[in-house]
Amino acid sequence: MPIVLGQHFIGGGRSGFGQPLHKSIDATTGEVLPYSFYQAIDAEINAAAQAAKAAFCEFRQISTVRRAEFLDAIADELDQLDDDFVAIVCQETALPTARIQGERARTSGQMRLFAKVVRYGDFLGARIDQSLPDRKPMARVDLRQYRIGIGPVAVFGASNFPLAFSTAGGDTAAALAAGCPVVLKAHSGHMATADMVGCAIVRAAERTGMPKGVFNMIFGSGVGEGLVKHPAIQAVGFTGSLAGGAALCKIASERPQPIPVFAEMSSINPVVLLPGALVARGVTIAGELAASVVMGAGQFCTNPGLVIGIRSVELDAFTDILKEHLGAQAPQTMLNAGGLRSYRQGVEHLLSHAGVTHLAGKTQEGKQAEAQLFKADVSLLLNGDPLLQEEVFGPTTLLIEVADDTELEGALRALRGQLTATLIGEPTDLKRYQWLVPLLEEKVGRILVNGYPTGVEVCDAMVHGGPYPATSDARGTSVGTLAIDRFLRPVCHQNFPDALLPEALQNANPLGLKRLVNGVWTSDPIF
Amino acid sequence: MPIVLGQHFIGGGRSGFGQPLHKSIDATTGEVLPYSFYQAIDAEINAAAQAAKAAFCEFRQISTVRRAEFLDAIADELDQLDDDFVAIVCQETALPTARIQGERARTSGQMRLFAKVVRYGDFLGARIDQSLPDRKPMARVDLRQYRIGIGPVAVFGASNFPLAFSTAGGDTAAALAAGCPVVLKAHSGHMATADMVGCAIVRAAERTGMPKGVFNMIFGSGVGEGLVKHPAIQAVGFTGSLAGGAALCKIASERPQPIPVFAEMSSINPVVLLPGALVARGVTIAGELAASVVMGAGQFCTNPGLVIGIRSVELDAFTDILKEHLGAQAPQTMLNAGGLRSYRQGVEHLLSHAGVTHLAGKTQEGKQAEAQLFKADVSLLLNGDPLLQEEVFGPTTLLIEVADDTELEGALRALRGQLTATLIGEPTDLKRYQWLVPLLEEKVGRILVNGYPTGVEVCDAMVHGGPYPATSDARGTSVGTLAIDRFLRPVCHQNFPDALLPEALQNANPLGLKRLVNGVWTSDPIF
Repeated sequence: MPIVLGQHFIGGGRSGFGQPLHKSIDATTGEVLPYSFYQAIDAEINAAAQAAKAAFCEFRQISTVRRAEFLDAIADELDQLDDDFVAIVCQETALPTARIQGERARTSGQMRLFAKVVRYGDFLGARIDQSLPDRKPMARVDLRQYRIGIGPVAVFGASNFPLAFSTAGGDTAAALAAGCPVVLKAHSGHMATADMVGCAIVRAAERTGMPKGVFNMIFGSGVGEGLVKHPAIQAVGFTGSLAGGAALCKIASERPQPIPVFAEMSSINPVVLLPGALVARGVTIAGELAASVVMGAGQFCTNPGLVIGIRSVELDAFTDILKEHLGAQAPQTMLNAGGLRSYRQGVEHLLSHAGVTHLAGKTQEGKQAEAQLFKADVSLLLNGDPLLQEEVFGPTTLLIEVADDTELEGALRALRGQLTATLIGEPTDLKRYQWLVPLLEEKVGRILVNGYPTGVEVCDAMVHGGPYPATSDARGTSVGTLAIDRFLRPVCHQNFPDALLPEALQNANPLGLKRLVNGVWTSDPIF
Repeated sequence: MPIVLGQHFIGGGRSGFGQPLHKSIDATTGEVLPYSFYQAIDAEINAAAQAAKAAFCEFRQISTVRRAEFLDAIADELDQLDDDFVAIVCQETALPTARIQGERARTSGQMRLFAKVVRYGDFLGARIDQSLPDRKPMARVDLRQYRIGIGPVAVFGASNFPLAFSTAGGDTAAALAAGCPVVLKAHSGHMATADMVGCAIVRAAERTGMPKGVFNMIFGSGVGEGLVKHPAIQAVGFTGSLAGGAALCKIASERPQPIPVFAEMSSINPVVLLPGALVARGVTIAGELAASVVMGAGQFCTNPGLVIGIRSVELDAFTDILKEHLGAQAPQTMLNAGGLRSYRQGVEHLLSHAGVTHLAGKTQEGKQAEAQLFKADVSLLLNGDPLLQEEVFGPTTLLIEVADDTELEGALRALRGQLTATLIGEPTDLKRYQWLVPLLEEKVGRILVNGYPTGVEVCDAMVHGGPYPATSDARGTSVGTLAIDRFLRPVCHQNFPDALLPEALQNANPLGLKRLVNGVWTSDPIF
């Protein structure tokens, strides 16, 4: 059995002054696992935030080459987490082995992608406007801008991606890449996983000579508020529920010095079925959509929770097949008992709603989640019924039938902000319904054509974000390389002698950056 | 006399359903000018926000060429505002004619710079990751990202730049460049100016065929809250007091859908006098610094409100000369009676503080502002006395003497976030005090060497921003081309047929953009 200390990670060491109150749970059996975790006391929350602050100035100034080495070292350490590790993650989350193996590779791949971003240096946003001493009526002084890390970042791990969105996940990778030390609030659903990943990060930090407080992590319940309130913390990354994210936003906005929060919260990810597609391949779509709804017990932020189609015999036929698919699903174990409880409540709310019809799905009882299909009247959406817009985190989806294009437009306009929207259509559909694209652009972070929203590629072009309540700030993404932008801020240097400038802005361009010099992009040095 | 209707600008027309309660005031004489302005009623606030919303979808999709033409047309209209206009601005603000003529040119120049930014298209942030159908273990789908306007922006004009930071100022230019319609809350200190500039913008909008609600403006007191609360408004730009900015942030964060606020608020802009410079040119520095302190009656966000030096005979000599300069200044008329009242109170607070000594300046009485010089014990800063960190908006500055480098470091670390910090030093000073640069980078938006912070160049590299309370979001700037970033958000298109994509992302690259394609920057089309 691997050693899992269950103590907090503070400034390169471990600490456990509080009580070992928290036990890791086997998500499948509900049994208590032999790992205990300490409740962080206030002094430890403070120490973790202070350690991050103490590390900030050194860490943000470490060369991009060494910062990238650190991220690559984390990736290597993650890859070396072995079968015992994978077994523990599976125990804590009830996720299958292949999924965790894949997620491990995705998480290390994500770290390496950010290492590339750091090496490339575009994120530094170097801009130089040289002096124009002869300009009339006034000379221009030399001005040079680059971006630095915003400061220590508090990261809240997500339950549903114990690796890729948690301890060494996307927010941590983006923050470290930006030069920001991290204080992680370990998710209670996979604390042994968090402990082992935390050790991997610390090994990488030691191996590459990073300052000790570059990564910190605390365990415990109710410790998030103190962390977000701590004056050393300068930004927050969060993935979780709307209630949780909104609470953190409130705390952050009421600080004496308010700080930005990037919370990825709630999305029902509408899928629009266009008429031609239902004619051409309704049967196939029903099967694919059902698979997307139940994948991973529906525990994805981008799970398709709303399906919209225009009334037709083809939609009826499609609905019948979707009913069959979802009615025939085997129950699945969810990530934890809390998640199952929330799912049961969500299903009950839909069942008890007068405007909602239950189309398929076994009675939700026992220890596993049953897939469900509901149908709601479009008037609920048009009249702003909140229930319809609330994410039910699990293998369920809700069908809405609209009378015509006008009602389709109204239904889509009535939606709140979403992570994704999907158009399923034949080429003729897409031509006829091209007007949906700008409408959806204003509602979501990502629009898919003929695909399913589950599955989020980690790359330059990905946006995993969107208008409220999908996220708390539509200008960010929590997946993909653009995620680094959330944790950077610009600083301008005016009339600096060359030697006093940060390397990114020196005339010789020692980092070989692409820089905007006097309005023109160039990698050339300045003579 | 020019025609000044005093009615709100809503959807291309004018509206005045409320009472003409507000009068424009001659800032120098206090006399009421013959221009009346209507108090916006709730229905008009709503109509203005709705007009902006109605214009958004069309405006944001107008080609970048036409959007740039619109900005250039505004610039042309601003340039054509004649001597009568300049005379009214001077009447309303007590600012000298040459300053207003210069500010007019700066404001139109700023519009043209944003037109260039729009034509160039970099702000669209186009990123393309093409599909990798053969990738193992999973294929990659085609993903394409660009940035769109965030939605209608509420802009609050500043008192101290009636043109450059007001109706057609930096926030308006950045929002329009981003594709966001604007609802302006006209500043009560220069309503006739606002009216005439508003007409200029509307003429430009008509001339270039923009949607009617692209620019809207309301007059009145207490109308800002309703505007920021309006669900159509998606972001806020503000320049003003800390109290005003913080109030808007609170309103914005408590909306059912919280929105970002970019408030530029309070900064005392520390100037650090390094020892060698005082030896070499203390007399010159005293004269230059005094000029920066009193320029424009000290009514600049970047006015140097705090001067720090290390105890020495040279600092004493410098102080004596600075006393002479500031003691000898003629009084100046401020922008408005409210500003003078605030200044008098600020001066009184400093005078009545036990730890603060008055070094120079005539008794603050009468209708004009008297330049003042104070000295405070460094302990006040080190112990977090709030008075020392509060901006006194006017021609005053406060000197702090530190014992040594350690105390200098402590004093700078004790500062809150600032727009600027300045180092005055000889080459040997700058070498010896190089350690100050990273410290200041974490405190401010712009660091100057051997210059004075008043005077903010509008260019690519400028940062007019900084950590709280200098601004509400250190990741933005309200001057320079990077200001556009505040009003943009990314959207991703997955697996789109080429014809369905926005032009920025189409294979042929019809806009000729520099795009990040499969991790490499290129302007080439994709074949």
